[in-house]
Amino acid sequence: MDYRRDFVVRPGIGVRLADIDPGFTGGHRSHDKAKPEIRRHVERMDALQYLLYADGRQSLLVVLQGLDAAGKDGTVRHLFSGMNPQGVSVACFKQPSPEELAHDFLWRAHRRAPGRGEVVIFNRSHYEDVLVVRVHDLVPEAVWSQRYELINDFERMLTRNGTRVLKFYLHISPEEQLRRFKQRLDDPTRRWKISESDYTERERWPQYLEAYEEALARTSSDWAPWYVVPANHKWFRNLAISQILTKTMEELDLKLPPTAVDLADIRRRYHKAAAKQKKARG
Amino acid sequence: MDYRRDFVVRPGIGVRLADIDPGFTGGHRSHDKAKPEIRRHVERMDALQYLLYADGRQSLLVVLQGLDAAGKDGTVRHLFSGMNPQGVSVACFKQPSPEELAHDFLWRAHRRAPGRGEVVIFNRSHYEDVLVVRVHDLVPEAVWSQRYELINDFERMLTRNGTRVLKFYLHISPEEQLRRFKQRLDDPTRRWKISESDYTERERWPQYLEAYEEALARTSSDWAPWYVVPANHKWFRNLAISQILTKTMEELDLKLPPTAVDLADIRRRYHKAAAKQKKARG
Repeated sequence: MDYRRDFVVRPGIGVRLADIDPGFTGGHRSHDKAKPEIRRHVERMDALQYLLYADGRQSLLVVLQGLDAAGKDGTVRHLFSGMNPQGVSVACFKQPSPEELAHDFLWRAHRRAPGRGEVVIFNRSHYEDVLVVRVHDLVPEAVWSQRYELINDFERMLTRNGTRVLKFYLHISPEEQLRRFKQRLDDPTRRWKISESDYTERERWPQYLEAYEEALARTSSDWAPWYVVPANHKWFRNLAISQILTKTMEELDLKLPPTAVDLADIRRRYHKAAAKQKKARG
Repeated sequence: MDYRRDFVVRPGIGVRLADIDPGFTGGHRSHDKAKPEIRRHVERMDALQYLLYADGRQSLLVVLQGLDAAGKDGTVRHLFSGMNPQGVSVACFKQPSPEELAHDFLWRAHRRAPGRGEVVIFNRSHYEDVLVVRVHDLVPEAVWSQRYELINDFERMLTRNGTRVLKFYLHISPEEQLRRFKQRLDDPTRRWKISESDYTERERWPQYLEAYEEALARTSSDWAPWYVVPANHKWFRNLAISQILTKTMEELDLKLPPTAVDLADIRRRYHKAAAKQKKARG
């Protein structure tokens, strides 16, 4: 299966989310059966992220979006399991601070964009400014409706400067969301996170889907594609995202940099140090 | 074994590094034999970091120092394996930028200090300003010699504001360092990292040890202790550091916050949503 082909949102065409099965598992019978493939992707991600870092010319920006309990946090954790934490960071975009609100909506996203050689994961992102902002009427339509174009321009600019941008919508069903809310309610260590807005936001599900469908259609681009990932099964979500990531990174033409030193000279230095050490030991 | 007691540098007394065996493994026969204990610490760290994050009142700053190839990067990776990456970040302190140099030496460290609920790992730190800076005479002695006191004041201030500060010196032998340099030389994927300064710095080993011994003696404090961790064996280094971390975090009196909502009300909302869903399905 090539999930880049199967899950990509075609630019300008878009998707009907209602037509996509959030419980899809691509023929994998169970998590156990899928484990070897997931492990393979994780190992490959690790090697590729090392190369990206060593190569130092390009970077990777991974955008995660989804409704409450869609699995953004779990996806972050999965991605880190296959990367060296020194080359990766997460940026969580919550309610904007007064300083952030005093700037254009892309300002805070831009500040957290990856430097050369780095991977940055956005847990929520600048897309909130055409999602929650739209659903809750936080700015007039005349303002948010212009943002799709601004987002495309922004992401193209990042791409031209060597950042590969990949965007994932984690697609869960309302039933699965409710099941996860119930788990939070039943787990004493997670109850403190529950908020009434979990339930009030849930009532706006159709408005959110509408906002997502428009965002996906208008901002999936050749340079920064959106993927709709079936996410009712956490393990399948992990499998699909890590497959898409590794396939994308394979194409980046990453290379180890040449050694900055004269290796013959370094070998001489090494042997000298080793001899000195041997002599000191007697 | 209680490695906090065994490896701590006693404030004002200090240590002679030459007296400490970098190959010490605390009676553990092999990595394989130690694995269950390491796994236990990692799981406990994970739970405690979650609690620290949930509790949201305190934070943890882990300082890693050591000579080249002492294992700072590997330690970072180990610590991340037992923490949720969204609550942890790494700050690597390399050659200061012009902006950093335009400020006092603690400025760049302070910017990266953990917020409440967070863990931050310093890979190198403000201690470089009494180590490499001293060994290479980058500032006059009259300047660096005052810094121990400034560091103690800084760390006490962080502590008073709820940050637990733990500092680890990763102690390897010159033989082990040379063995690791050889591995780099033999591994085509790691050669690009080799620099001549690996070998020239190695010649200053005695000066570095002297600088470390003074720093450890003068800045190990009750509020921000230094630990000298035998690090020739990577697995033992990981075991010792995670034991010290978990024991320290156990004492922080971390608590889950109370639920912000009326749980009975949330349960009613949940049942209402579930009934609605059932009805919709027919």
